[in-house]
Amino acid sequence: MNSARARQDTLTKPQGSLGRLEELSIKLAGIQGKPIPQIRHKAVITMAGDHGVVAEGVGNWPQEVTAQMIYNFLRGGAGINVLARQVGARVVVVDMGVAADLEPHPQLISRKIARGTQNMFLRPAMTPQQAVTAIETGIEVVGGEVAKGFDIVGTGDMGIGNTTASSAICAAMTGEPAAEVTGRGTGISDEQLAHKIEVVKRALAVNRPDPKQPLDVLAKVGGFEIGGLVGVMLAAAAYRIPVVIDGFISGAAALIATALAPRLRDFLIAAHVSAEPGHKVLLRHLRLTPLLDLGMRLGEGTGAVLGIFLAEAAARILAEMSTFAEAGVSEREK
Amino acid sequence: MNSARARQDTLTKPQGSLGRLEELSIKLAGIQGKPIPQIRHKAVITMAGDHGVVAEGVGNWPQEVTAQMIYNFLRGGAGINVLARQVGARVVVVDMGVAADLEPHPQLISRKIARGTQNMFLRPAMTPQQAVTAIETGIEVVGGEVAKGFDIVGTGDMGIGNTTASSAICAAMTGEPAAEVTGRGTGISDEQLAHKIEVVKRALAVNRPDPKQPLDVLAKVGGFEIGGLVGVMLAAAAYRIPVVIDGFISGAAALIATALAPRLRDFLIAAHVSAEPGHKVLLRHLRLTPLLDLGMRLGEGTGAVLGIFLAEAAARILAEMSTFAEAGVSEREK
Repeated sequence: MNSARARQDTLTKPQGSLGRLEELSIKLAGIQGKPIPQIRHKAVITMAGDHGVVAEGVGNWPQEVTAQMIYNFLRGGAGINVLARQVGARVVVVDMGVAADLEPHPQLISRKIARGTQNMFLRPAMTPQQAVTAIETGIEVVGGEVAKGFDIVGTGDMGIGNTTASSAICAAMTGEPAAEVTGRGTGISDEQLAHKIEVVKRALAVNRPDPKQPLDVLAKVGGFEIGGLVGVMLAAAAYRIPVVIDGFISGAAALIATALAPRLRDFLIAAHVSAEPGHKVLLRHLRLTPLLDLGMRLGEGTGAVLGIFLAEAAARILAEMSTFAEAGVSEREK
Repeated sequence: MNSARARQDTLTKPQGSLGRLEELSIKLAGIQGKPIPQIRHKAVITMAGDHGVVAEGVGNWPQEVTAQMIYNFLRGGAGINVLARQVGARVVVVDMGVAADLEPHPQLISRKIARGTQNMFLRPAMTPQQAVTAIETGIEVVGGEVAKGFDIVGTGDMGIGNTTASSAICAAMTGEPAAEVTGRGTGISDEQLAHKIEVVKRALAVNRPDPKQPLDVLAKVGGFEIGGLVGVMLAAAAYRIPVVIDGFISGAAALIATALAPRLRDFLIAAHVSAEPGHKVLLRHLRLTPLLDLGMRLGEGTGAVLGIFLAEAAARILAEMSTFAEAGVSEREK
């Protein structure tokens, strides 16, 4: 990081004039352990799972949309596909626990733990063993991608009902009241929002997740795709791969992952702040400043790939800009 | 724009969930006059000029840096080259009035109006005719690029001393006090900043530019590259080419251009808000909300090319995402 910082200050621009791109290049150097980091092989890992809590009517979209959107990902027609194509990132789609039998597809990694979680309004979303399996699965998926070349990873999610689970995780891990960290998800009315908040409160009251035990929180009020993303983050950091986290669901995974391994925080890059109110809360808790604020709330990894673009820009600046000496440009006086 | 908005609402995502990217796609549709806008041919026009006011010691960099940086642009080693390569935009470099004889280069458009402006601390920076010539030059440069294909343009600048000219323009056009719109440019001390503010005040007092006559403001306290960018903006809008404005210097040009042609405002996209305090002021005056806030203050068009990336993302979303019907995804209930 010291080498990267020193090099930034020799490039043909006033020192610090590329702002957060300069800081980001130095962070990337630290993560990759290279004075000049490289962002060439890019992937977004989009994990999908269903949520038993949808039985409580927390949203407006039918559960079948989770499976339908996976097919959309595999055909290249979803938002994440469009943006990933633009930045040259591959999209790795993982079935962590969709409540439908999905047709095999060469691009689909099938690691279904169960057909959706249990309804956390009534009981724990998953067993402790399922929570561990979800994390291990995320670790294995990263391992499988490393052989293909892997310089940066974005995290993405798909799962009808998963903002409800993420709100419960966020409330449990940060201690903030449910009403402060529960939002409109895909777009619900005031009345529906009040109901969703009650569902989150009740899930916390019924299950009493212990914030000192992040696995307990994941099992009781989490989701399979969220557990998978915890594993992705832990494994990527172990391989010194920078992790660009997406929106609220990825942020909830980051709360659990950093509680398990506090040093992970240094490997995380917050792509954006979403329109979900809990996202701001958890980013503050993680002490991460988002790069973008574009009012996005789609998930899938769409914010993360925009963050990958900025990370690549930061790395290219450090690698490709001429120094004052190379360019024969006079330096600042005094 | 209505067609674009209607199409956004049929794409496989909750309505509005791509936030400002959705709004941007609709704006691009209006500018290009196409229901599905296209961003394929991208260019940033970086205009350079020198400023007589550097004789007053407003900055820390020698004037020769303007010419040296042009050679850096032509060799591809500057910040703008690196970021433009990443987004696939060509860099069009124009000598509008550099205070040095530049060697001819196939990539350099030589339209030198004079060897730098006069010192606005003592007298008008340029004659009224030079101001008109600067604008006409910008118009001609855009015309010359249209034949190569041109779907979006970013504006960029290079010129030692040009934050001082931009502060004077900003104060004159917005009526804000010099102290509120004068910043540290490439990085000056508190003492130097106080001096720079006095220079801006004095330039305004000596020349009395008339904000009702934008050409008068440009001539008295502007710069050749700023006038050129005014022409670029006017011409691009006439060709229905979206204009992504960069930082403070481009913003000063936009103040003059929109005063000449108020409807131009609808064709402008503010890429980012820079670290210069006057930039926030002028964006508010222009009623433009920047896409990015990354603490950048390099100029050259570096912020603009990041904005071009986001505009391309917005256009691709609208063009390439599947609709609910195409993807067989269920729509929201009720």
